[in-house]
Amino acid sequence: MNATGAALPRGGWIIVAGGSGFIGSHLCDRLLADGHRVVIVDDLSTGRDSNVAHLAGRDDVHVLTADVCDPSVVDTITDMVDDQITAVMHLASPASPPAYLARPLATLAVGSTGTANLLQLAAPHRARFLLASTSEVYGDPLVHPQPEGYWGNVNPVGERSVYDEAKRFAEALTAAHHRIGAVDTRIVRIFNTYGPRMQPDDGRVVTNLVHQARAGEPMTVYGDGSQTRSFCYVDDLVGGIVALLDSAVTGPVNIGNPHEFTIAELVEVVREVTGSSSPVEYRPLPSDDPRQRQPDITRARTELGWEPHVALREGLARMIAAIGS
Amino acid sequence: MNATGAALPRGGWIIVAGGSGFIGSHLCDRLLADGHRVVIVDDLSTGRDSNVAHLAGRDDVHVLTADVCDPSVVDTITDMVDDQITAVMHLASPASPPAYLARPLATLAVGSTGTANLLQLAAPHRARFLLASTSEVYGDPLVHPQPEGYWGNVNPVGERSVYDEAKRFAEALTAAHHRIGAVDTRIVRIFNTYGPRMQPDDGRVVTNLVHQARAGEPMTVYGDGSQTRSFCYVDDLVGGIVALLDSAVTGPVNIGNPHEFTIAELVEVVREVTGSSSPVEYRPLPSDDPRQRQPDITRARTELGWEPHVALREGLARMIAAIGS
Repeated sequence: MNATGAALPRGGWIIVAGGSGFIGSHLCDRLLADGHRVVIVDDLSTGRDSNVAHLAGRDDVHVLTADVCDPSVVDTITDMVDDQITAVMHLASPASPPAYLARPLATLAVGSTGTANLLQLAAPHRARFLLASTSEVYGDPLVHPQPEGYWGNVNPVGERSVYDEAKRFAEALTAAHHRIGAVDTRIVRIFNTYGPRMQPDDGRVVTNLVHQARAGEPMTVYGDGSQTRSFCYVDDLVGGIVALLDSAVTGPVNIGNPHEFTIAELVEVVREVTGSSSPVEYRPLPSDDPRQRQPDITRARTELGWEPHVALREGLARMIAAIGS
Repeated sequence: MNATGAALPRGGWIIVAGGSGFIGSHLCDRLLADGHRVVIVDDLSTGRDSNVAHLAGRDDVHVLTADVCDPSVVDTITDMVDDQITAVMHLASPASPPAYLARPLATLAVGSTGTANLLQLAAPHRARFLLASTSEVYGDPLVHPQPEGYWGNVNPVGERSVYDEAKRFAEALTAAHHRIGAVDTRIVRIFNTYGPRMQPDDGRVVTNLVHQARAGEPMTVYGDGSQTRSFCYVDDLVGGIVALLDSAVTGPVNIGNPHEFTIAELVEVVREVTGSSSPVEYRPLPSDDPRQRQPDITRARTELGWEPHVALREGLARMIAAIGS
């Protein structure tokens, strides 16, 4: 890692809001492996307690079922821990389009009030604050791939703005706290991620195809399958988040896998890894085809010494092995 | 007006958050003239009670000094009025760059928490909610002039994002309440405005030049004066806001004056109207020269039948007459 001298001390408490979610739970595993203690805060609206059931009973883990928009959450968390809070990490939000479109006001609230509360939690403890932002701040990008300096193309009053604008607001709020010296902050922009513990109904193409292949159902491809995507394996992503947390880089920093593959290639790899012979069912490309984004990870490479290592075939094999039979 | 059948009933209470501000106070005058009753809510952080001193003692006016971010404000306002609340209008925010850059967290809060509280006030009363948004949602626009369908070019973590992203978030929150049927909403995007009651220290070019000319001081021009601006006289602007409020158009709708003039032309008109012989003092153009925006008002023209009428010379004469001697 290039950025040294900024690693968090081990042994303190790290508050992980959204710690029972797909990415949050993997992050908790990694933080514990690194020697931190963890308070998992999640309202379980989209997170699942089964994601962190394997951590139950550990004395370096507390689990709090609470909404970070509730102003009392700051005191509740402070009262739970008997030692230093070294970091507050904000991953709480519905994150897949079906999830946030079903919860528009909650999504707006967790990006605004939730972020404000967690910054307020971090400030008196001089704890480092990390915001999990998203490639969605780039909206329908007019620049490919997207570097952090690209300002994005988001419709402020569109249906998806409940997520996109909430995250842009959360970034602005986080950056303002940093600028005035109130909190030491980090912003990571997370691109498409896959791996164990993804919600089967999250509507994402990897999840859909894996579950269809395993069930022997036809695998749905919209359009001719020539459209491209890029996905990052969750362990790689978590490695990038932790590298940022342990650095002096404030960001925003893109963390994602820039390697693009076509949907047709994805189908072939899923078939191979699952041993499925599911046929492909082609359907018309919807008019609101998911917006494509591809990270420019120059900043993560140069400032954090981070890059992804897990190839799609390997990552899918691990994901499918974790689902079990 | 083309949009008919949607005019608010007269005689009810309209809550004007930011009602002691430059634009808010003119809006209150107009609403009262139209036969509404008005509750002026302002924390006086940038608004001034002198702007509404002429309304004191009227039984169709209540003045509440309060921050709309305070959750108790909803109950306080509800308890103040004895009759129907027909509309809630949210103009509360620091609005000039010096004002919002000096109050970054308050600006972010009034756009998020303030908007949420005022929507919550409107909902149980079935009151119409109008958000005063801004041309700043277009950021450094790549399209000139800007129609409402342009998504803008805003740096989410830049210094000015405390205002720009707060307003974009407020739009997203307002649009979400409309989409789920919780509140009947309107969004106006206000462009540069001038007129009586502007703060002398707001840092805007019209204010600066008028005050320098009246004081006989040199009039500061950055660059060679060939750069253009467009400003709308406040009575025109208020007419547009009221036309939107009384329409079935949800917006966003740009309200502003698309007529462009150069800074050199502005200097000449200010000199004429004030009778000043102040010399011009040229200074280098700052690297962060104010972002130029010019409204495309096609939507306001066609859907509201609105357009501005007051020419610059006339508006400046009225503004200067109001300052007095």
